[in-house]
Amino acid sequence: MLKLPAAELFEIPDETIYLDGNSLGPLPSGVTAKLGAMLRDEWGEMLITGWNNAHWMEQPARVADMLAPIIGAPAGSVMMGDTLSIKVYQALAAALNMRPQRRVVLSDTGNFPTDLYMADGLLKMLGEEYELRVVDPSQVIESINSEIAAVMLTQVDYRTGKLYDMQQVTDAAHAADAVTIWDLAHSAGAIPVELEACKTEFAVGCTYKYLNGGPGAPAFIYVRPDLIDSVQPALAGWLGHEAPFAFDLDYRPGTGIERMRVGTPPVMQMTALEESLQMWKNIDMGQLRERSIELSELFIREVENRCPQLQLASPRDPQERGSQVSFRFEHGYAAMQALIDHGVIGDFRAPDIMRFGITPLYIGEREIQRAASILQDIISNEIWRAEKYQVRSRVT
Amino acid sequence: MLKLPAAELFEIPDETIYLDGNSLGPLPSGVTAKLGAMLRDEWGEMLITGWNNAHWMEQPARVADMLAPIIGAPAGSVMMGDTLSIKVYQALAAALNMRPQRRVVLSDTGNFPTDLYMADGLLKMLGEEYELRVVDPSQVIESINSEIAAVMLTQVDYRTGKLYDMQQVTDAAHAADAVTIWDLAHSAGAIPVELEACKTEFAVGCTYKYLNGGPGAPAFIYVRPDLIDSVQPALAGWLGHEAPFAFDLDYRPGTGIERMRVGTPPVMQMTALEESLQMWKNIDMGQLRERSIELSELFIREVENRCPQLQLASPRDPQERGSQVSFRFEHGYAAMQALIDHGVIGDFRAPDIMRFGITPLYIGEREIQRAASILQDIISNEIWRAEKYQVRSRVT
Repeated sequence: MLKLPAAELFEIPDETIYLDGNSLGPLPSGVTAKLGAMLRDEWGEMLITGWNNAHWMEQPARVADMLAPIIGAPAGSVMMGDTLSIKVYQALAAALNMRPQRRVVLSDTGNFPTDLYMADGLLKMLGEEYELRVVDPSQVIESINSEIAAVMLTQVDYRTGKLYDMQQVTDAAHAADAVTIWDLAHSAGAIPVELEACKTEFAVGCTYKYLNGGPGAPAFIYVRPDLIDSVQPALAGWLGHEAPFAFDLDYRPGTGIERMRVGTPPVMQMTALEESLQMWKNIDMGQLRERSIELSELFIREVENRCPQLQLASPRDPQERGSQVSFRFEHGYAAMQALIDHGVIGDFRAPDIMRFGITPLYIGEREIQRAASILQDIISNEIWRAEKYQVRSRVT
Repeated sequence: MLKLPAAELFEIPDETIYLDGNSLGPLPSGVTAKLGAMLRDEWGEMLITGWNNAHWMEQPARVADMLAPIIGAPAGSVMMGDTLSIKVYQALAAALNMRPQRRVVLSDTGNFPTDLYMADGLLKMLGEEYELRVVDPSQVIESINSEIAAVMLTQVDYRTGKLYDMQQVTDAAHAADAVTIWDLAHSAGAIPVELEACKTEFAVGCTYKYLNGGPGAPAFIYVRPDLIDSVQPALAGWLGHEAPFAFDLDYRPGTGIERMRVGTPPVMQMTALEESLQMWKNIDMGQLRERSIELSELFIREVENRCPQLQLASPRDPQERGSQVSFRFEHGYAAMQALIDHGVIGDFRAPDIMRFGITPLYIGEREIQRAASILQDIISNEIWRAEKYQVRSRVT
């Protein structure tokens, strides 16, 4: 197993403490060479024959099978492709098709907005009788009833890091015969996930956060193995067809998880991701989680001791927290800009949340201590008041 | 303007004559260095701040504006992202929303299957009252009537290269108050297209063929400028939201073409494409078309003279043909394998079509003559009969 931290596996700039791996993971060391080789030896040399000879066509399934063990899924139950937004749509459309008599999708106010937007777009198209019911996270379980076709939640709240008990909610949904869709954006590679054991029908996620697949890395969808051959693909793309190269006029869904493919896969992104996932063969998720909790506890202790102006926004119980720590601070936006300017990269979520991703693959005690000390300097000396830290940029 | 052919702009293997740029364009010379720099200097160095500092967030719109003049579209009317299958879905869903009283989508048997499949998936979800009506290309115009919500066609037939008169069909559709969606997969970068002048409501396309964006390069969608601010996005992703980083719970479509964005863009693919499109500033589409016709006529002449066993499957009139030439041959699959093995790369489409992309950017008379001569050798000496050329691979 990998000795942690293993920062040598990444190309992280000197003097940078990177606490934003929950938003975009850093560049794994092998990716640049791998992608260069793919361009030169595959696209450049093989041209169109790369689809066969470099196995581009099978790559999404192959990469998915590398990812599967990280989320407790069996081989053949996960497919890579598209974006997380598209995969949410695909899962929800399939779920609604499985419960044709029901009209309500249940989600919560802690869900990442694009999940809610995609659901809204789908339900609006299906007609006025459909409803997206968005409740407070504390009310999800009591809101599950026989009206609910699907319960669609993100396991780890993107702002606070609050963690759902996936088993408990899934069981409650199943007791009401509702389908579950779990968004693992902040779970995959962050905490142990046992998809197969939990019996959720669907899960989706992205790979550019804790899995370090790079900006815009492909998303994934999981379908419970016993359902794969009956799921109805709403996004009926040719690569999910039973025989894409027969060019039949009629759609016939492919066998198994292949039917969740849509269009031509982004081979460059897929190649970068495939290389990024290599390290996970040597990572024990239990050990990673243990380190994540130790480092998170240390960070909370240090920040609370040094910066009484900040209030912990994440759950105090580590068992209820993903692999991030968030603090509320009225001037959080400016403070985060100042922090980034001083080499500690976290991010900000409106209205007042400073987010810090705790990623034991490349963060250790030394980085946590140093980040807390720089944060203390910025807060107690009000360095964030400088005008340059007040200017809002589009992406934070 | 660029002097043609300009094969030095590409990294094409020595001894290869590449006549499959209609399926996957070759590697432009600058892409490998550009992508390496993006990995090292942007993802590696800037990490999450690349979204602002390397302008990844604006990249899809910027790349779309580079593409726009190639298809006769004004700046701000095109958006890059996702795959062509997804863009077909997005356009069709928006078109149906614009004609809520109508229930029929008209397409033809020459359309690329994924367009039909995506439409089928969408219409099945919308309900039994919707119909995908697929007619022979020769019957499209007479089939347009007041039942038709949308006419959805690929301008250039992927098998024969037969070219629709986009203006004529669009006018006929508009006379019946139907919306038009043109798939430009085999048009963009191949023939002059005047989207704005033609007044089509929507167009979609891919960029890995004649635009040389690389395997899995992002797709595009065009919306007629007067409609952009009223189009209803069915795929309501967060990056199409009016204020994605406000993280509101409610979806509000963004201004202009931004609303056709869905999820996080694939930055590596987008960077490769952006570099690939640089050369188009120096390309005159009229000149390119003229050369394409000259080379196509030469190829037809040469093949017909040398290989009487092959029948021209493309229209004989160059005005009715895109930038490819297809021949029917009973043993076309094996013949194409043999041809590829002898350094001339084209492709095969069932049941019997040998396809050759004519791409004047990197193909000249010398390559056309040589390809025809090698083809003659394979056909007249029945080299294709060798056992190794009979084995079917998944992708052809």
